[in-house]
Amino acid sequence: MKVGFADTTFARVNMGKIAIDELRRICSLPYERYTVPGVKDLPVAAKKLIEERNCSIVVAMGMPGPKPIDKQCAHEASLGLIMVQLMTNTHVIEVFVHEDECRDEKELLEVTENRVREHVRNAVDLILNPKKLQKLAGTGQRQGFEDVGPVLR
Amino acid sequence: MKVGFADTTFARVNMGKIAIDELRRICSLPYERYTVPGVKDLPVAAKKLIEERNCSIVVAMGMPGPKPIDKQCAHEASLGLIMVQLMTNTHVIEVFVHEDECRDEKELLEVTENRVREHVRNAVDLILNPKKLQKLAGTGQRQGFEDVGPVLR
Amino acid sequence: MKVGFADTTFARVNMGKIAIDELRRICSLPYERYTVPGVKDLPVAAKKLIEERNCSIVVAMGMPGPKPIDKQCAHEASLGLIMVQLMTNTHVIEVFVHEDECRDEKELLEVTENRVREHVRNAVDLILNPKKLQKLAGTGQRQGFEDVGPVLR
Amino acid sequence: MKVGFADTTFARVNMGKIAIDELRRICSLPYERYTVPGVKDLPVAAKKLIEERNCSIVVAMGMPGPKPIDKQCAHEASLGLIMVQLMTNTHVIEVFVHEDECRDEKELLEVTENRVREHVRNAVDLILNPKKLQKLAGTGQRQGFEDVGPVLR
Amino acid sequence: MKVGFADTTFARVNMGKIAIDELRRICSLPYERYTVPGVKDLPVAAKKLIEERNCSIVVAMGMPGPKPIDKQCAHEASLGLIMVQLMTNTHVIEVFVHEDECRDEKELLEVTENRVREHVRNAVDLILNPKKLQKLAGTGQRQGFEDVGPVLR
Repeated sequence: MKVGFADTTFARVNMGKIAIDELRRICSLPYERYTVPGVKDLPVAAKKLIEERNCSIVVAMGMPGPKPIDKQCAHEASLGLIMVQLMTNTHVIEVFVHEDECRDEKELLEVTENRVREHVRNAVDLILNPKKLQKLAGTGQRQGFEDVGPVLR
Repeated sequence: MKVGFADTTFARVNMGKIAIDELRRICSLPYERYTVPGVKDLPVAAKKLIEERNCSIVVAMGMPGPKPIDKQCAHEASLGLIMVQLMTNTHVIEVFVHEDECRDEKELLEVTENRVREHVRNAVDLILNPKKLQKLAGTGQRQGFEDVGPVLR
Repeated sequence: MKVGFADTTFARVNMGKIAIDELRRICSLPYERYTVPGVKDLPVAAKKLIEERNCSIVVAMGMPGPKPIDKQCAHEASLGLIMVQLMTNTHVIEVFVHEDECRDEKELLEVTENRVREHVRNAVDLILNPKKLQKLAGTGQRQGFEDVGPVLR
Repeated sequence: MKVGFADTTFARVNMGKIAIDELRRICSLPYERYTVPGVKDLPVAAKKLIEERNCSIVVAMGMPGPKPIDKQCAHEASLGLIMVQLMTNTHVIEVFVHEDECRDEKELLEVTENRVREHVRNAVDLILNPKKLQKLAGTGQRQGFEDVGPVLR
Repeated sequence: MKVGFADTTFARVNMGKIAIDELRRICSLPYERYTVPGVKDLPVAAKKLIEERNCSIVVAMGMPGPKPIDKQCAHEASLGLIMVQLMTNTHVIEVFVHEDECRDEKELLEVTENRVREHVRNAVDLILNPKKLQKLAGTGQRQGFEDVGPVLR
């Protein structure tokens, strides 16, 4: 089993590096990394990681800018990432951090780091320990920011 | 015949648990459950439930948040769920409850519970008793809230 | 040759019944009917009518509600219906009546009835008498409301 | 080699007739014509022209109305036409004239006629004389209205 | 290995010519050029460059106009370009310059030239020197305008 990491030169934080660090921290799975220019290049990178480099799961990371055109690119990339999964029967965990989610660069850095690390753990759980996710079903998990938590009865 | 349930850790209500409870209440069909992080992970989960775990139908449950980006994720997930169905010739009943459909957490809980239960019954009818749905054609059925009812002549 | 009718329990008018009535009125083609919960379930129903029940054409009928989420569901369903056609090389005539197209329930009933009947005739022409449609090319045909007619030189 | 023409009864100008006239004016290629109700029926018509009637290229013509729902239908049809091309490795030239592009019916007629004729010439060039398009690369060509022309250094 | 260049007659700058010039400047890879009318014709052109003319990567260039319909065409084309990549496991680098990104024609020319040249270098790196992109991961690269740079800790 191998984990694929796809990231971009467009992002303003080295998301791939954080992902690799987290993977090493939590397990000994090998990984492949594939860096592309922008988020719209991620779908085919994810597909190649799965089909040409035998990854069992991919974490696809990007940081869409704040302009409407950036939002649209992210939307197109997201659709592509869903298609990849359906063509390969393999999970591709999308980790997008929108620049305008955050108040300033400090928060952007924190949210990015947290979201990448949490989703790397989700990816590892999906392939090694799916029951762990089942235990968290419906608990309002969020990645990057605080969990919202479940609705209390 | 087996029913697949796909749900998320992002949701704030344990939708999979409600679905399983309803299934057990109305029939003795076996089921498979697959929990993923968010709605965009549901399409491939549904496809895997159909193709790798032999489910005859899937109920895919999620709870998109109130922000524009959440709406967009839900839209992308919905398109993916439609694609899964066309790739497998198998129904995937989407059960999304948008957090902002409801006035407060109490209503959110009620709507979620009702919608999940009603769609589990729809799913079972689709595979076991399709004539039952035909009898309800054009009667303004809604899931979660009150039925709107048919237009009266 | 067989005509497929897919309709929903969500619709507030029994569109399938009207369609069957019109088909019987104009020809002796056999038909299959498939009722699903909502418009997003129509694409796979249409595909199954074509591939599993041997329909030569499908009329897919639904009545999207007036809310933004209803519009989005209709959009997703429409994309799915186009995909079905491309996967099967078979026409699927979409007959959607948006609740907010009409001033009141009386008009909703009339528009629905007219649109369903006109599109059943279109479907039959597409498989039995395509030249008839060619004669109407560019004449501003509308289904449900009055024809707009051609631009006059 | 054969050219396919797909047009609609919804359009308010006989676009297929103009297209055939232009084709005959400029070359002796044979053609097939396929008239469908509306723009959303064009994708499968184009695919059938390519796969069942052996067309080497298709010109798909429609005239979306001015309402938001018409715009959405056009968008869905456009996506379908792109999918057809990717499934068949064959060009499908989309010729849509939006009713609200024009001030009045006179202009609508002129723009439609010009756009159809120019795109029929584009289609013929794509299959018979691709170098001609290459010479026009980056020159701000428009179909229907005046060319915008290249940006001057 | 061969690079494919797809461009349009709609664009107001000869993007293909700039791309070829840059390719020759940086390496000796052979290329194929395919000019089509508009951005919506680019996806199938890219697919044909890959499948019929054996290109290992494609740079697809277009210049969407400033109107809402132009934005929508660009969106549809982008989705098509992503699909091409997933169908062929081959990168297609999209180089779109929106006319309204720039204040005037002088800037439009500069941005276009820079963006095309930078993306040709990205394309060559993707097939010849992928490690180079990895070194730039998360550094806020932009094509056409100034790089934004990484978020500083």
